[in-house]
Amino acid sequence: MSFNLATILRESRQSDPGKTLCHIGELSFTYSQVDEMSGRVAASLRGLGLRPGDRVAVHLPNLPEFLFSYFAILKAGLIMVPLNPLLHASEIAYHLEDSGTRLLVTFASIAEQAAKAAGPIPIYVVSPPGDDERPEGTLPFSDLYAAADTGEIETTDADDTAVLLYTSGTTGRPKGAELTHFQLYMNCTVGGELFGFRDDDIGLAVLPLFHVFGLSSVLNVAVRFGGTIALVPRFEIGAVVDALERHRCTIFSGVPTMYFALLQADTSGRDLTSLRVGVSGGAAIPGEIIRAFEEEFPGVVILEGYGLSETASTTTFNISAEQRKVGSIGKPIWGVQTMIVDEEDRPLPSGPGHVGEIVVRGHNVMKGYWNRPEDTAEVFRGGWFHTGDLAHADDDGYLFIVDRKKDLIIRGGYNVYPREVEEVLYTHPAIAAAAVIGRPDPRLGEEVVACVTLHPDAAVTEQEVVAFCREHLAAYKYPREIRFLDALPIGPTGKILKKELRA
Amino acid sequence: MSFNLATILRESRQSDPGKTLCHIGELSFTYSQVDEMSGRVAASLRGLGLRPGDRVAVHLPNLPEFLFSYFAILKAGLIMVPLNPLLHASEIAYHLEDSGTRLLVTFASIAEQAAKAAGPIPIYVVSPPGDDERPEGTLPFSDLYAAADTGEIETTDADDTAVLLYTSGTTGRPKGAELTHFQLYMNCTVGGELFGFRDDDIGLAVLPLFHVFGLSSVLNVAVRFGGTIALVPRFEIGAVVDALERHRCTIFSGVPTMYFALLQADTSGRDLTSLRVGVSGGAAIPGEIIRAFEEEFPGVVILEGYGLSETASTTTFNISAEQRKVGSIGKPIWGVQTMIVDEEDRPLPSGPGHVGEIVVRGHNVMKGYWNRPEDTAEVFRGGWFHTGDLAHADDDGYLFIVDRKKDLIIRGGYNVYPREVEEVLYTHPAIAAAAVIGRPDPRLGEEVVACVTLHPDAAVTEQEVVAFCREHLAAYKYPREIRFLDALPIGPTGKILKKELRA
Repeated sequence: MSFNLATILRESRQSDPGKTLCHIGELSFTYSQVDEMSGRVAASLRGLGLRPGDRVAVHLPNLPEFLFSYFAILKAGLIMVPLNPLLHASEIAYHLEDSGTRLLVTFASIAEQAAKAAGPIPIYVVSPPGDDERPEGTLPFSDLYAAADTGEIETTDADDTAVLLYTSGTTGRPKGAELTHFQLYMNCTVGGELFGFRDDDIGLAVLPLFHVFGLSSVLNVAVRFGGTIALVPRFEIGAVVDALERHRCTIFSGVPTMYFALLQADTSGRDLTSLRVGVSGGAAIPGEIIRAFEEEFPGVVILEGYGLSETASTTTFNISAEQRKVGSIGKPIWGVQTMIVDEEDRPLPSGPGHVGEIVVRGHNVMKGYWNRPEDTAEVFRGGWFHTGDLAHADDDGYLFIVDRKKDLIIRGGYNVYPREVEEVLYTHPAIAAAAVIGRPDPRLGEEVVACVTLHPDAAVTEQEVVAFCREHLAAYKYPREIRFLDALPIGPTGKILKKELRA
Repeated sequence: MSFNLATILRESRQSDPGKTLCHIGELSFTYSQVDEMSGRVAASLRGLGLRPGDRVAVHLPNLPEFLFSYFAILKAGLIMVPLNPLLHASEIAYHLEDSGTRLLVTFASIAEQAAKAAGPIPIYVVSPPGDDERPEGTLPFSDLYAAADTGEIETTDADDTAVLLYTSGTTGRPKGAELTHFQLYMNCTVGGELFGFRDDDIGLAVLPLFHVFGLSSVLNVAVRFGGTIALVPRFEIGAVVDALERHRCTIFSGVPTMYFALLQADTSGRDLTSLRVGVSGGAAIPGEIIRAFEEEFPGVVILEGYGLSETASTTTFNISAEQRKVGSIGKPIWGVQTMIVDEEDRPLPSGPGHVGEIVVRGHNVMKGYWNRPEDTAEVFRGGWFHTGDLAHADDDGYLFIVDRKKDLIIRGGYNVYPREVEEVLYTHPAIAAAAVIGRPDPRLGEEVVACVTLHPDAAVTEQEVVAFCREHLAAYKYPREIRFLDALPIGPTGKILKKELRA
């Protein structure tokens, strides 16, 4: 069936063309402007020879050009590959190669990394106003505005892939989760209904749009229901408070560390009374933070949900103050089924004594991992998507996460996959074995710690190892602390026992 | 992406299992009963060796067993082929053969026709309570209740065909329009939102469920939003008024002749005050009927829409009393685009002088005609579905149907749109119903003929009617011949059968 996710933009533009879609600082763009700009970019991409199904990478912070690029890619029937602006050149190169990307959009301040990585792929650079410096061989993004908007939306199947969202999943190198037009449509529609998003709502968009939470629950929801978002390019508490106040934001979506930062911030004399809902996800939010936040900001209710890149964001949700259970991630949303299963995929009964893996089925679950039939088959065994997250359910069907993915570290809201850091450590000549774990951290939630053993006669300092990792990994990923051990604890099957390391 | 339309039943059952899904006479069935019964039938169909994608024909009037069969077929990932109970054996045989049906469900009183047609295909017969007579070689439908409900819903792709809906389209033998899980889901979701269907709404289901209007706009909408329907197996005015009153129906969905019949009926002393919305479709409803109906039943608003089997019902709609334009079929619904095009598929400007064919694009448009790639290509030329309906648009984007392309009368080189003539005839005090057709004429090509029925006790001569029309219509348009009939031939969905009038 033909369906293109860009329909959400077209329909909202049609019903109110002059409505503001996004604010950024003093600037704002209406629905008709975003529709027009993305239409021009779409026409340019077509003119460059890109054809439906081709991949285009967008390596941008939360800027209006992210929206122009995203909707252009959808309109032209291309596949969007969002990339974290903090990635290093070697990581960018990996993503571009794995996805077979044919064109890259990046931002001036990070364009050097992209230029190193992109090889022969054309690079279009978004520049801050009045500054058009960019690496040699790259092109200005504004070149893509030259074509006339034809108003054409490519006819795509509802099941065609719209976005390739890279995630390490439970293990290994990043894999592209294929999210379809249908799935992303369903997720923003059902998702927006969960917290009653209306066309007069104004969402704060500080969650990165390259991540599924920001892309689906913030951007897509707002566009689907004809609302407005206020873009904040990175989480800086002063900018966040300014944007909340200036744009009279009604919805704040964030990870727990953001709620914590808002609580810590001095907001005296600031008018944040427009806020009505806080959507929390990405990591379990402590009940203490919910209570303190709702006390500090009367009238706001924090609703916690749960999801993954592979499930196009929301999977379970606490839908209202009356129906939520603090400490729970809520119940499966409309159209989604979950089970808690044991190691042999047998369903477990409810009760805190029955902890198992959350498995998911429904319209929200990805098509599969791009070009990875075996990994796809593995996570879909028995027809259910295996999240790798451990939880138990209560008699009312509410789910309680016990442990995030066994090994995943969440540092300041960003996923750090130990195996990726370990792979870097293993390339260091002095290091014999490595295991990366998270250490509780009051500010970031978790801090990345590497436990290593050295080769005989090798020597290296903590500072040297940290510096080495820093060279190869994004800033949020490299370990801040290195522990030198004589040996790593190994289990009977040869796996390193991280549980023991954490203890 | 996996999505099965049976999700609408599962989700509504989960949120309120004890809620009544359907009434029929004194009986009623809850969501959990319908879920359970259809689960048993699904398990039996699987047990009989039917596999996803196999076709099952349902040849039933509006009975609870229609719902059990329909949701069973969806749950098992099979394809539903609804058949009109009035079909003759040779017509049934054609549908079964064309669709490659593997199993047939029918009703006792029409089972003979089915038995003659079915050949080796197993036939399951629904019988009225206490009467299990059925043709030799057939099986009781209740056999399909024997298996235990596994609760399993087959994983289907959103783009898999869920229903094969036979329609003559614009020409030729009936063709099976392939409607997918996604398309039917979108249509009932967007459709229900159009007239604000809520879980406390009770829809009267007298429109046949084997037809797209009843299936999508009445049954699917109610189940999607957790509401209730009152089944009436055939349009008999007494039964309709009884059901409206007894079940406190809030929504009446019907074709214009049904509204007309309700107006003519004696409803004095009956309490029909629960009614709030009348949804009209299937044919253009004369403005006179809307005005009279809303006067007779204060508080009711009639909202007219437009759609086809090939567009999974609703395509355009008048969404509210404030926003409707009487005489218009409204504007394209969410996610749907229409254009008015000339014979060479060039878009026409707005204005009543620019009559052309309505073409449609969007999530609602069928996948294609079953096993008919050439017919499919023909109606989808240029990527737009060609409806065969003639209309013009106004500057606000409202569409005005002028007529079916095939009903168009060409008199002496001039286009005469029967509907326009009928509208004039309906304003005559003596005329109850009218249908205008073309009669072959050696000199003019075609001549305009009006077939009319009169109100009881009314009298008027042919000359008077001709003179009346002449006063209100251009010289080339007014009918030269009037035929007075006792009744106009009405098809199973309530449409006037012009084909029969022409014969």
